[in-house]
Amino acid sequence: MSTEGIENFKKQRNYLNDIVMKYAQTNMKRFYALDSKVYFDGALSRKTKEMMGLVASLALRCDDCVEYHIIRCHEENVTDSEIEEALSIALIVGGSITIPHLRRAFKIWDELKEKKMQGDVQDG
Amino acid sequence: MSTEGIENFKKQRNYLNDIVMKYAQTNMKRFYALDSKVYFDGALSRKTKEMMGLVASLALRCDDCVEYHIIRCHEENVTDSEIEEALSIALIVGGSITIPHLRRAFKIWDELKEKKMQGDVQDG
Amino acid sequence: MSTEGIENFKKQRNYLNDIVMKYAQTNMKRFYALDSKVYFDGALSRKTKEMMGLVASLALRCDDCVEYHIIRCHEENVTDSEIEEALSIALIVGGSITIPHLRRAFKIWDELKEKKMQGDVQDG
Amino acid sequence: MSTEGIENFKKQRNYLNDIVMKYAQTNMKRFYALDSKVYFDGALSRKTKEMMGLVASLALRCDDCVEYHIIRCHEENVTDSEIEEALSIALIVGGSITIPHLRRAFKIWDELKEKKMQGDVQDG
Amino acid sequence: MSTEGIENFKKQRNYLNDIVMKYAQTNMKRFYALDSKVYFDGALSRKTKEMMGLVASLALRCDDCVEYHIIRCHEENVTDSEIEEALSIALIVGGSITIPHLRRAFKIWDELKEKKMQGDVQDG
Amino acid sequence: MSTEGIENFKKQRNYLNDIVMKYAQTNMKRFYALDSKVYFDGALSRKTKEMMGLVASLALRCDDCVEYHIIRCHEENVTDSEIEEALSIALIVGGSITIPHLRRAFKIWDELKEKKMQGDVQDG
Repeated sequence: MSTEGIENFKKQRNYLNDIVMKYAQTNMKRFYALDSKVYFDGALSRKTKEMMGLVASLALRCDDCVEYHIIRCHEENVTDSEIEEALSIALIVGGSITIPHLRRAFKIWDELKEKKMQGDVQDG
Repeated sequence: MSTEGIENFKKQRNYLNDIVMKYAQTNMKRFYALDSKVYFDGALSRKTKEMMGLVASLALRCDDCVEYHIIRCHEENVTDSEIEEALSIALIVGGSITIPHLRRAFKIWDELKEKKMQGDVQDG
Repeated sequence: MSTEGIENFKKQRNYLNDIVMKYAQTNMKRFYALDSKVYFDGALSRKTKEMMGLVASLALRCDDCVEYHIIRCHEENVTDSEIEEALSIALIVGGSITIPHLRRAFKIWDELKEKKMQGDVQDG
Repeated sequence: MSTEGIENFKKQRNYLNDIVMKYAQTNMKRFYALDSKVYFDGALSRKTKEMMGLVASLALRCDDCVEYHIIRCHEENVTDSEIEEALSIALIVGGSITIPHLRRAFKIWDELKEKKMQGDVQDG
Repeated sequence: MSTEGIENFKKQRNYLNDIVMKYAQTNMKRFYALDSKVYFDGALSRKTKEMMGLVASLALRCDDCVEYHIIRCHEENVTDSEIEEALSIALIVGGSITIPHLRRAFKIWDELKEKKMQGDVQDG
Repeated sequence: MSTEGIENFKKQRNYLNDIVMKYAQTNMKRFYALDSKVYFDGALSRKTKEMMGLVASLALRCDDCVEYHIIRCHEENVTDSEIEEALSIALIVGGSITIPHLRRAFKIWDELKEKKMQGDVQDG
């Protein structure tokens, strides 16, 4: 996934969520709200919670969820070492069956890092 | 997935099943037969059974299975409210990890509805 | 599980939920509320929804969830044929790995039926 | 689980299967038959197939299924090294989440070995 | 599970791991080592990592793993609010199917808290 | 997936693994090593182990893992009957939810067979 890929991912996600909301009744809407609130700052920071969401997503092997939380972790300034240690836990807990998703996780992480460096150069 | 997408899905599914049947021996063939019969009318209607298949497919997070049962539910005249309530159960049971599949489920449902409306206009 | 077993199951469940509520904050409490509301009568009946919850629980292989929904299905007057057809769908979708849970599902179902018959005799 | 435990496991399993069969209709019965036939000798030996059933059961984390296939593997004269290598594959594929089941698998394996040695001594 | 229950859990776990090690060859032993090292202090603290292990364990619905990480979190001085927020993430990600495990998680947490209070009183 | 598809799969896999290794620390690298060694010849042959990896991958429904082990099984001269029996076990254990992955497994198997036949003709 290229830089455009990440933008497309967000756009596609929003587009599809709009379709869900076209049909969603109260219960479904409330679940969506909860799924957002559970990552808010509290006793644990948003940053820690996003990493937890990432670990759960990799352990459960959901590509879209992994991608979403990788992007969110990047926005929360998670470092390379932190992301590697979080993903290592999910890998050991979940086993080699998670590796295809791990590969795609690092692919997106790598693009986010390169995108940032290019941005820094352009800003410099 | 556009209207063509749904036709392609069916064609691709049949094409791949033909390859399976090229290699399948008795046990595999019998399982395929069972997988068909279990949705036949009985004490429960086909319609109810297709919704149950949909709920199980979303809870287990299988895109192809979700798509197949969404199409079948549409053919069985499941309503918007019924599909939303069935999918809500799977969402609550299975959690936010099912959301990417839920999004694709409603995407296909939406296309099936629009396709029908266009057909109704053309028939009118 | 004997008749007492079913009463103990309900008591133990309530006892443990009380401990959860001792620690639960808003998000967790809201999820509990949603998990209850999603089975309310709507476009689909409570009875159909409980069977859907049962199918999802067996497909996901959760003993406590299967037991809960089996009891609820019995309360909603689901028949033997209906429960068998619902469980058959979950069995075919989820495979032989669900069989240990299927066995326990029918064990509880059988006890609920015998309990009722004894009750009918006592009432008669 | 002691030696008696293994006998009790088999008895309990048969007892519960009898209850399933009290309610089972054609589809469910046919699935039970398939679940038996798929392990028969063919291009692959029963022994290899039982080990495959064990690997799948551990990867999917089903205690009853693991126990059943461990007993069957023992009956098919699988060696210590073979069982260890088969379980290692399931462990690496499925991750540390399989370890509680791995522990119980070796517990039963160990009892089956000791039971046999005692039998050999008594027979000698 | 009472206070004794927690001690028994640890004893039983060690006892069973000894049986595993009686049969384990190099690969299995190395995996056990990795499963330990991945929670060591690094860019992320042991405390954060134990909570991540807990989230993954609840999302994957493994009682023994949940219990192990709950005990470890308690040893790392995780607070009530932190444990509740971590478990809430796993609940929302994994859905209502995780609730039976969530109940047992809080049951053990509650015992660990009461045990500590009693210890504090005795120490006071 | 055409013949090129299989080559692309291998290339893409290597490319992504290189990105993983750019970030991987000791634990992750060791897991990768284990994931390789566990399939080496031992008490069980590589061929048997690859089929076990395939069964676990299909039961756990991981397309990339299924594809990898299908290719490896082909390289180890697994026959049509052997692959069919191994996949049948995974299908019965894992249920109809594995069918979309089973279809893709046979699609790749079929291409590997045709590719070989063409190669034999060209070599003849």
